[in-house]
Amino acid sequence: MQDASRTLDLVFGALAEPNRRAMLTRLSHGPATAGELAQPLKISKPAVSQHLKVLEAAGLVVRTRQAQWRTCTLRTEPLDEVSAWLDRQRAAWQESFDALENRLREMKRERGPQTAREERDEGTTDR
Amino acid sequence: MQDASRTLDLVFGALAEPNRRAMLTRLSHGPATAGELAQPLKISKPAVSQHLKVLEAAGLVVRTRQAQWRTCTLRTEPLDEVSAWLDRQRAAWQESFDALENRLREMKRERGPQTAREERDEGTTDR
Repeated sequence: MQDASRTLDLVFGALAEPNRRAMLTRLSHGPATAGELAQPLKISKPAVSQHLKVLEAAGLVVRTRQAQWRTCTLRTEPLDEVSAWLDRQRAAWQESFDALENRLREMKRERGPQTAREERDEGTTDR
Repeated sequence: MQDASRTLDLVFGALAEPNRRAMLTRLSHGPATAGELAQPLKISKPAVSQHLKVLEAAGLVVRTRQAQWRTCTLRTEPLDEVSAWLDRQRAAWQESFDALENRLREMKRERGPQTAREERDEGTTDR
């Protein structure tokens, strides 16, 4: 459980920066070198390298050496974990929202006959 | 687009801390006061207040005053936004994975007849 929480810290932290998200979006279309990842971004090569380290620590990127090239590949398992966490949150919220809605409907039903009687009484007074 | 990116920065950043996630989980079951949120956490009241500010800035929590109590309520719209971003990433990755799988299947089919011929030739040599 502690490990799962640490994973969430690292993955959410890694996703909280626009350049890192741009790098992941690029990698979601296929592997790339650090140079290819840096190309569309307006940041220095050391900054790219630093961002890659954060993504690697979160388990979102794996770097492999092919001949003289180091290729970066996306790993989506950590994304599955954060999606699952988000889904659980939204399900719990929906449940508590549904419970509130049911309670309101119940209160309306309980109040219903009384309201109908009041309206009838008012009608009687009008006649 | 810039605003959407800023929202993702703030929301992912807010989610990257276990006490803040615990506070959101508590709020997903219904509104609570800052004191109620602090109770199960092993952190100081000023720390709770600081975390609440981060959650508010990300649009995940709204604080309203009821008599002398300030109640915290979960807002899930920002969670919907980060879920949508994650779903897009995973869809793009799945697409590129499917494309790779199709390419491999094609290569296997292209190689197929040749492999069959090689096997037949081997069979002839054996006889």
